[in-house]
Amino acid sequence: MRASQFFIATQKEAPSDAELISHKLMVRAGLIKKLGSGLYSWMPLGLRVLRKVENIVRDEMNKAGALELLMPAVQPKELWEETGRWAVFGPQMLKIQDRHERDFCFGPTHEEVITDIARKEISSYKQLPLNFYQVQTKFRDEIRPRFGVMRAREFLMKDAYSFHTSVECLVNTYNGMHTAYSNVFTRLGLKFRAVKADSGAIGGDGSQEFHVLADSGEDALAYCEQSDYAANVEMAEGVATGSRAAPAETMREVDTPKQTTCDDVAKLLDIDVSKTVKSVALVVDEVFTLALLRGDHQLNEVKFGKVPGVQNFRLATEEEIRANLNCPPGFIGPVAVNASVRVIADRSVAVLSDFVCGANKPKLHLAGVNFGHDLPEPALVADIRNVVAGDASPDGKGTLSLCRGIEVGHIFQLRTKYSQAMQATYLDENGQSQVMEMGCYGIGVSRIVGAAIEQGHDDKGIIFPRSMAPFDVVICPIGLDKSDAVKQAAVALYQQLQQAGVDVLLDDRGERPGVMFAESDLLGIPHRIVIGDRGLAEGNVEYKGRTDTEAQNLQVTDSVAFLRDKLGQ
Amino acid sequence: MRASQFFIATQKEAPSDAELISHKLMVRAGLIKKLGSGLYSWMPLGLRVLRKVENIVRDEMNKAGALELLMPAVQPKELWEETGRWAVFGPQMLKIQDRHERDFCFGPTHEEVITDIARKEISSYKQLPLNFYQVQTKFRDEIRPRFGVMRAREFLMKDAYSFHTSVECLVNTYNGMHTAYSNVFTRLGLKFRAVKADSGAIGGDGSQEFHVLADSGEDALAYCEQSDYAANVEMAEGVATGSRAAPAETMREVDTPKQTTCDDVAKLLDIDVSKTVKSVALVVDEVFTLALLRGDHQLNEVKFGKVPGVQNFRLATEEEIRANLNCPPGFIGPVAVNASVRVIADRSVAVLSDFVCGANKPKLHLAGVNFGHDLPEPALVADIRNVVAGDASPDGKGTLSLCRGIEVGHIFQLRTKYSQAMQATYLDENGQSQVMEMGCYGIGVSRIVGAAIEQGHDDKGIIFPRSMAPFDVVICPIGLDKSDAVKQAAVALYQQLQQAGVDVLLDDRGERPGVMFAESDLLGIPHRIVIGDRGLAEGNVEYKGRTDTEAQNLQVTDSVAFLRDKLGQ
Repeated sequence: MRASQFFIATQKEAPSDAELISHKLMVRAGLIKKLGSGLYSWMPLGLRVLRKVENIVRDEMNKAGALELLMPAVQPKELWEETGRWAVFGPQMLKIQDRHERDFCFGPTHEEVITDIARKEISSYKQLPLNFYQVQTKFRDEIRPRFGVMRAREFLMKDAYSFHTSVECLVNTYNGMHTAYSNVFTRLGLKFRAVKADSGAIGGDGSQEFHVLADSGEDALAYCEQSDYAANVEMAEGVATGSRAAPAETMREVDTPKQTTCDDVAKLLDIDVSKTVKSVALVVDEVFTLALLRGDHQLNEVKFGKVPGVQNFRLATEEEIRANLNCPPGFIGPVAVNASVRVIADRSVAVLSDFVCGANKPKLHLAGVNFGHDLPEPALVADIRNVVAGDASPDGKGTLSLCRGIEVGHIFQLRTKYSQAMQATYLDENGQSQVMEMGCYGIGVSRIVGAAIEQGHDDKGIIFPRSMAPFDVVICPIGLDKSDAVKQAAVALYQQLQQAGVDVLLDDRGERPGVMFAESDLLGIPHRIVIGDRGLAEGNVEYKGRTDTEAQNLQVTDSVAFLRDKLGQ
Repeated sequence: MRASQFFIATQKEAPSDAELISHKLMVRAGLIKKLGSGLYSWMPLGLRVLRKVENIVRDEMNKAGALELLMPAVQPKELWEETGRWAVFGPQMLKIQDRHERDFCFGPTHEEVITDIARKEISSYKQLPLNFYQVQTKFRDEIRPRFGVMRAREFLMKDAYSFHTSVECLVNTYNGMHTAYSNVFTRLGLKFRAVKADSGAIGGDGSQEFHVLADSGEDALAYCEQSDYAANVEMAEGVATGSRAAPAETMREVDTPKQTTCDDVAKLLDIDVSKTVKSVALVVDEVFTLALLRGDHQLNEVKFGKVPGVQNFRLATEEEIRANLNCPPGFIGPVAVNASVRVIADRSVAVLSDFVCGANKPKLHLAGVNFGHDLPEPALVADIRNVVAGDASPDGKGTLSLCRGIEVGHIFQLRTKYSQAMQATYLDENGQSQVMEMGCYGIGVSRIVGAAIEQGHDDKGIIFPRSMAPFDVVICPIGLDKSDAVKQAAVALYQQLQQAGVDVLLDDRGERPGVMFAESDLLGIPHRIVIGDRGLAEGNVEYKGRTDTEAQNLQVTDSVAFLRDKLGQ
């Protein structure tokens, strides 16, 4: 593409409402243009990026055997009433009345429509399994649209829906979609992780989210650099490191006149806070309970609620603490407590020996405490804490890091939530009517562009992976209108690269070098060739990768081969 | 594609609401599935067809230098108020309120949005011309949606909008779009014509419609088989054939006791009706006027309204006829009329000699009548009739045929209708602010699929041009599950064709031959290979083109080359 025949309109200032760097950079680079709140036009430059993402998604869906179709954006109310979601979905659904005052919505998702198709088109087990997908414009009426295309109201989504005769078959396709999604994000060149997820409003069992890792993400994740393990930080499994060492100390009281936190106690005693144990006083199903955690750990209430036998729990009041332990908060501990007090220890506490904990006496703690000697083994050992950076990965393959993630994909085992409600049935081998098992699988195509920029940028602008860059290479000729040699060399290289199948931009607008360089950096074009009279005199052009600190000289005659090599051709 | 891994769901019965053959066949072939009134899902088979059309459109737009972008479907009311179209567009526009009760519409077209982009992004004449396009889902709330995808409410459209500093530049791009559209329809393999059009609700000067020729079309067209001339039948120019022969007869009265029409008079006199002249009595700007037409022609009121000097006109009443001609209707004529009666002759009448017309006396006509002898030359000669089949083409390149057309494209010179209203201005070479000239260019992408089927079908089903067929070739193996030889031959040919880049369907579902053949005919797949044990024993497979009456045998070893040849590879 010649820049003179293309449309590049960058701007110096980011919009005042832009909070995220991707939003700022997409507007500054002219990839998108705001039409209204949460409504963006994809300008030619941005659409090139969007289509590259879309095509990779489509390609991997096809490879996985999914069949593309295209459903209407506008959907009749009646279908949504069959599943009860017309009432449930809430104001995020954009409702519409047509000229005959019939109710419709601008589809925020398509479970109802595809299930309607399935119940009409699928009659026999012989037709199953099937996995349909579309790449389509959706609308969700966000109350406060922001973050540019990351939380736009109108957006481009790939949504797939699968139909099965059995859970095994559903799981098989679900796993295939997991692989396809991993392939998509790998091909896109993004750092990502799949994490287990609550299934949220769409409903059903078994679901995973795909997150692009970026500091600005809305979700806190724990992931393992050495493996593909990742989880929502609140869901990640905490494992204990090593086993309990033999006791070496004898329990003793230590004065802690003002030290009511583990940090303060550890500082006073000059020990690592990981050698201290804090006792969180709870009332669990009417029983006064101490949850024991390492001083550097936090109770995870979601996990605690899932401890076997636990139904309801709440923090104990100060009165309840004093009544059960005869001690004010800040100095409580599990030693020598009444037999009616239940003790539940986190896995990391259960492997401690010679630890420090509250003494159940004001202004005193105990040191050199050991289970089996100074207090009974805990009634129950469970994973009840939030993981922290440096924890062993639950898959045993390394250690956990914490990061933030931007959700760009989601796969669900819906099971029969929709097929049951809408009576999507088929006849099995025995001629019996059965309800179909269903899965659904979404990718936020337009959101990926924003997420990629959140992951890849510097102070000069966007750093696109090659898969998504609007162009692979930009040629910047210096003094184009003054030097025939420059012009000829630039056009020759442009044509050679085009013939080699390289997506190349020739910046023939006659802009100053500074403008050309700043714009190519802002746009995130991975490779830049600068052609000037001085270099040409020695048979050279200049190359610089987007993230290189220095430019390098190339022989003109080597430049096509060099770039093809860089592009992995 | 293997049929067993694809989704083919044909049905025997056409929907009861389907009037058009394309609607019936698309539903029967399973290309589309109705979701609601005017709302259709494109099933995998149909989407393959739609995408092939879309890709050809996109390719030709790119070749013509247009730049693809993507604007939102949902548009704010405020923009439409700037052009006054929020009020004017009427109930075809689907209006929407968001959760904050702000007004939007589901875009029926995008002039306002693109003009808003242009006024924000274009500031200098140096940026012009620009031609932006998108392929996008539109919604028009038809009062009675019907004809399947031909008049759906939600549909896929390619719409382009160009911006210019001058009319010359606009006309240049307009002509480029004319060429691009001609290329699109030629590549699609459709019989089409471009015709001049009224510009309708979108407004502006200079516009042409592209029509696919088909009997079921809504528009009556006149076109020349020998050239690309075509026009709406009401707009087509009527030209006279030859020049006036010298008079050979003397005017005489003939008895026509009951003959009040030219047809009846011609029959009585045993002459061709083209030798008779009928007089249509009109009141034109208060003047009693006779419009003279050949007996086989009809007055075209639109053309008559454009005759120089004509402001208003209406048919004369019987009273006015009797008052001016002293004769009842049925026998009136232009001979010996009062000087106050104006005579306007059609071009075809002006070249007649020795013609027959009414005598202005009851039950009498005149024969052998000649201008310049029996009555003065007409005051005015003009094109005031509808053309008929067999007329000379106005471009002098052949004769006209009449047909019907389905509008699938439209190109407009909008000029400054929108840019003026929305103040889309730029600075010219002299730093003066100027309003941009605009053009717009639409193609009904989804409508083309229906139109192609209207043009190509028989009693077995769809006859797609190769460019649009869901598959190029279908392989039908007979007795797949019984014969290893058939299976091996079928799979081998399938793989060879795939490697040759042929879009091939292997019908491996194990259906009976009759079912396979009926479905491949219904789907309109252009080429079919049948593989059976009997043929294979002699090294043969059977080939049949979709419109061939007989199948033919091919050597297995020749079949790939044969098909590549058929496909023009």
